[in-house]
Amino acid sequence: MPDLDRIVIFGAGLVGTSIGMACREAGCSVYLHDRVPSHALVAAGIGAGSIEGYDPASITLVVIAVPPTAIPGLIAQSLERYPNAVVTDVGSVKHGIAASLPTRLDTGRYVGSHPMAGSQHTGPLTASASLFRERTWVVTPRAENPETNVVVVEKLAEICDARPVRMDAPAHDAAVARVSHLPHLMSILTADQLLGLAADELLLAGQGVRDVTRIAASDPMLWRQILQANREPVRQALLGVQQRLAELVTALDDPTDLQGILSRGREGAKSLPGKHGGQASVFESVVIEIPDSPGALASLFADIQTTGVNIEDLSIQHDMARNVGWLSIAVAEAKPLRDAMVAAGWQVQG
Amino acid sequence: MPDLDRIVIFGAGLVGTSIGMACREAGCSVYLHDRVPSHALVAAGIGAGSIEGYDPASITLVVIAVPPTAIPGLIAQSLERYPNAVVTDVGSVKHGIAASLPTRLDTGRYVGSHPMAGSQHTGPLTASASLFRERTWVVTPRAENPETNVVVVEKLAEICDARPVRMDAPAHDAAVARVSHLPHLMSILTADQLLGLAADELLLAGQGVRDVTRIAASDPMLWRQILQANREPVRQALLGVQQRLAELVTALDDPTDLQGILSRGREGAKSLPGKHGGQASVFESVVIEIPDSPGALASLFADIQTTGVNIEDLSIQHDMARNVGWLSIAVAEAKPLRDAMVAAGWQVQG
Repeated sequence: MPDLDRIVIFGAGLVGTSIGMACREAGCSVYLHDRVPSHALVAAGIGAGSIEGYDPASITLVVIAVPPTAIPGLIAQSLERYPNAVVTDVGSVKHGIAASLPTRLDTGRYVGSHPMAGSQHTGPLTASASLFRERTWVVTPRAENPETNVVVVEKLAEICDARPVRMDAPAHDAAVARVSHLPHLMSILTADQLLGLAADELLLAGQGVRDVTRIAASDPMLWRQILQANREPVRQALLGVQQRLAELVTALDDPTDLQGILSRGREGAKSLPGKHGGQASVFESVVIEIPDSPGALASLFADIQTTGVNIEDLSIQHDMARNVGWLSIAVAEAKPLRDAMVAAGWQVQG
Repeated sequence: MPDLDRIVIFGAGLVGTSIGMACREAGCSVYLHDRVPSHALVAAGIGAGSIEGYDPASITLVVIAVPPTAIPGLIAQSLERYPNAVVTDVGSVKHGIAASLPTRLDTGRYVGSHPMAGSQHTGPLTASASLFRERTWVVTPRAENPETNVVVVEKLAEICDARPVRMDAPAHDAAVARVSHLPHLMSILTADQLLGLAADELLLAGQGVRDVTRIAASDPMLWRQILQANREPVRQALLGVQQRLAELVTALDDPTDLQGILSRGREGAKSLPGKHGGQASVFESVVIEIPDSPGALASLFADIQTTGVNIEDLSIQHDMARNVGWLSIAVAEAKPLRDAMVAAGWQVQG
């Protein structure tokens, strides 16, 4: 990988540190910077790169992985300081960054990108070289970017095991407005309606509202920056919702219209591809009681693995505080696993 | 349990069958009916009750667990057919049912209720006597209900291991409009905005939009009935959102206002109590790589259980199709588990 063998990363958070780990595993030299020096130190300690000095002229790629408002300034500084490097950022909004750079700079060396990964975790300690594995990594080239510079950023994505996809910056921003920023705001608006409910009313909450409002608990300061950076596409998406919402209020009185809206929503939910870009798979679930005895979960897993079925997902339901619960296992076909587990003496739901 | 020892259940779906199983386990006689006779047969086959004949005058409790539009008619029929029974239903909207009953009937014997449980599964085969364990079960008494009749329904909830909570029907309906029906519609409106996106745009979807739109994939016919039955409280909730949405569109231009809205949403999300009505707990996660070898998950679990930590929840992340993945384990405190697993030679993220 001669054209990106010496990499500088700004920002030792989850994303920057994970990129560093993947690049180190691929044999690149990585140098880390963070506004908080101890973050860079921690990231270096877990194998994401080095905090030692280096010759800026030797650097071939600079990755900017800092909060949105700090991105344009750092790109401009990096274009000046690293005369031979391609500079990319991993921010979630791409439009307008290039235009904000001083024209005296060699802006053809800046190529925007956006890896579609993240996690409920934050900070370097939760980083992983596999964070981007099989995730989409959008690269947003402009006319002034030499092809070789674009390819450098695509190679970075490949080193991280991600799938690079080229897209225009405005198309990217409009798409994330609808698949990420709008869902975030809908979660916020739903959660807002819970304020003022009494404790006994909140007791009526089930899994549905918890799912819808999970991302509303995210960091308001970070999201304020993301949303403001992508203001116009987000506004367009909100205006689209505003229109549908007015239709919905009226449709409450008309069974056909209401069912039509519900059916469209169902279709929209089903249009989401599977986790790794494939078709969404529909799995069947087998739910098995976890007996209240030491080692029960371990021996349950031993029996599941004996059956040889491929576990797609699993979750524990109900009350683990009391050490009783149910293990829900998603598999392509429920019957073989269910039969085998019943035969092995486990209590299977259904 | 002398006052509800002979129970009739209409509707052998997930909820009706689960109630039957819990009541059978408590030693009650249970008789099952379903519009589709084979459903009642299946429910009887898994221990939810009997499909044999019985004397209607001997029945002490009738439970109506059918789709919303069929509920009022079946309550009226049951009050006539079972002269000595308390009649309850488990529908998610309570207001208006009592008023719709013919006044010539002994409507003091009808007591509404609503167990807050369900599942992504449907049908009798996924039923479980523990479906309602530690869930809230709302009972909605009216002035004309003798206390003894209300107590019968509360006892049913207790037999099912649920926590009965008394509430006025209108208060119940307004609360579920905000904690259940509105979140459902917000999920629908979010999913609706995904229609028309190109395949490469949908590739940008992450976990957030999947969580927000999960319940949008539910049965439109069932939800049409639920929403229309609770039309006015749902409309009020939607009008509340409409106002906030207009504020949000404007706030996109004002950092302070926008962050205020995001912070309110976060507060709302955090106001939801924990799964079983307690305070929401914040767990820490330990993420461990599952090696690509037979029995890896089983031996991983054996080692986890050796540490003696209490597992609060778990999930598998990434690509199980390739048999590689990460196990995310939620625990009260991450460090002891992380240290123990590293010491045992597992690859722990972070």
